[in-house]
Amino acid sequence: MKLTILGCYAATPRTITNPTSQVLEIKNRLFLIDCGEGTQVQLRKNKVKFSKINHIFISHLHGDHFYGLIGVISTFALLGRTTDLHIYGPKGVKEIITLQLKLSNSWTTYNLFFHELESNESEVIFEDNRVVVKTIPLKHRIYTNGFLFEEKPAERKLNVEAVENYNIHIAYYQKIKNGGDITLDDGTVIENEKLSFDPIPPQRYAFCSDTVYNEAIIPIIKEVDVLYHEATFLESEAALAQKTLHSTAKEAATIALKANVKQLVLGHYSTRYGDINVFKQEAETIFPNVLSGDDGTCFEF
Amino acid sequence: MKLTILGCYAATPRTITNPTSQVLEIKNRLFLIDCGEGTQVQLRKNKVKFSKINHIFISHLHGDHFYGLIGVISTFALLGRTTDLHIYGPKGVKEIITLQLKLSNSWTTYNLFFHELESNESEVIFEDNRVVVKTIPLKHRIYTNGFLFEEKPAERKLNVEAVENYNIHIAYYQKIKNGGDITLDDGTVIENEKLSFDPIPPQRYAFCSDTVYNEAIIPIIKEVDVLYHEATFLESEAALAQKTLHSTAKEAATIALKANVKQLVLGHYSTRYGDINVFKQEAETIFPNVLSGDDGTCFEF
Repeated sequence: MKLTILGCYAATPRTITNPTSQVLEIKNRLFLIDCGEGTQVQLRKNKVKFSKINHIFISHLHGDHFYGLIGVISTFALLGRTTDLHIYGPKGVKEIITLQLKLSNSWTTYNLFFHELESNESEVIFEDNRVVVKTIPLKHRIYTNGFLFEEKPAERKLNVEAVENYNIHIAYYQKIKNGGDITLDDGTVIENEKLSFDPIPPQRYAFCSDTVYNEAIIPIIKEVDVLYHEATFLESEAALAQKTLHSTAKEAATIALKANVKQLVLGHYSTRYGDINVFKQEAETIFPNVLSGDDGTCFEF
Repeated sequence: MKLTILGCYAATPRTITNPTSQVLEIKNRLFLIDCGEGTQVQLRKNKVKFSKINHIFISHLHGDHFYGLIGVISTFALLGRTTDLHIYGPKGVKEIITLQLKLSNSWTTYNLFFHELESNESEVIFEDNRVVVKTIPLKHRIYTNGFLFEEKPAERKLNVEAVENYNIHIAYYQKIKNGGDITLDDGTVIENEKLSFDPIPPQRYAFCSDTVYNEAIIPIIKEVDVLYHEATFLESEAALAQKTLHSTAKEAATIALKANVKQLVLGHYSTRYGDINVFKQEAETIFPNVLSGDDGTCFEF
């Protein structure tokens, strides 16, 4: 699982900071999450192949999370893309994008599918044979979802030595990989655990931005491998965080602790603080495993 | 008159090239012309004060000329702007911008005025005591205008020595600056030319992008001091220029020659050519005074 942060600063793009966008590579799938202005340039800078992006998830319709979407869609068309592109985002995203395409009389060269979200409950919005994506309803000034990316459990690994010892025919291997027990010709039942090893446990990544401190998300993100949680402010600005429905670094860490996640990645920093290490330092007073997201950083988990 | 090129490359923003946007400073007024994605960052890079921008002109609704507009408008609001902002652009620009503001529930802190353009004739769209702005109807794949920025004629300069010699009272000075003759007490008429000097001639700047080669614009831009004319292609791609309703460098130079302008600035280069000097070289075979626009360049005229 590989997370590339294209941008993780709040509010307006600046010469050295970019608004929210990130690329998650999981089970060989590439997901683009949020799309602030300049995302297409950040994709180029970080050498992400445009052609590998087939699914874009938009958390909410504040500009710093989606003003770059129309540019990405248009550029894909200019490059002659033919593969389907799927957009998942709040109701309204389709109207905005299609209005712009209509007024510029520049329709896409590929099929564009909008999956508009309206539910306030967590729901499955994407599923294929390797990955499931669910929404994480967040509390912000407008309708907002985080996203939970879950690998599907891998097959169990065949214990080659054991199956050969029992003289089990190759026709039964898939059944073993699927977790099934085997009955030998003499009627003996061999339990699956004796014929296979546990697979690599599936990984889960939770993206939570933007949101006020909200314990309601804990059951959804419980024990994820990696939690990206917004930390717009420090505790010294807790009142401002509350007012604007953002979180502090300490609050992000508290969610990480209570959800018992393995790793917390911080982001969506207000640019009022000169040094982003202050967010990590504050979070580490609550939760030990904290990484500072930063534009252009790439984490492998 | 000062022209700052924020971006002058065609189509998609890239790591080292920006789509169309420029800032014209004329008679102490600052005009933002076109607004491709990333314009707000380019404004910061080029140290253009956001607060000095009160009028934004959008030539047409292709993404490389206006996807950055919503970001500029939003950022002005985030910074707490209170001064009116005027947007001049094709019909539809108001709907796009207001829809995005509505869906993000982020209204501006200032008054936003839209001046939507629909005419196919040149018309005055802005006028104050120093500057007039007129449209230049262009021929492109969608409704497009160039813009002509004209300084108003300055007052004539008082010939102090002459007015003192004639003992003319200070009360008549403004009349002389306005070009009026003076009748002395004895009935003698003193012609204005004897009492004043010609003012600095007013300057004119014409922005023409995007457009196919179109001689119909020549009467409007006749003898301007500076013509910015798009040169997306070289003559070797003349057929492609014709098909996409763009111009070649040679065609831009031909317009400059026939309109007898003083200075031609090229831009809107296709990124297929490695070196933008090739555009200047081609244009100079037709017209001598050619400047290569480039991102971050600033010309004073």
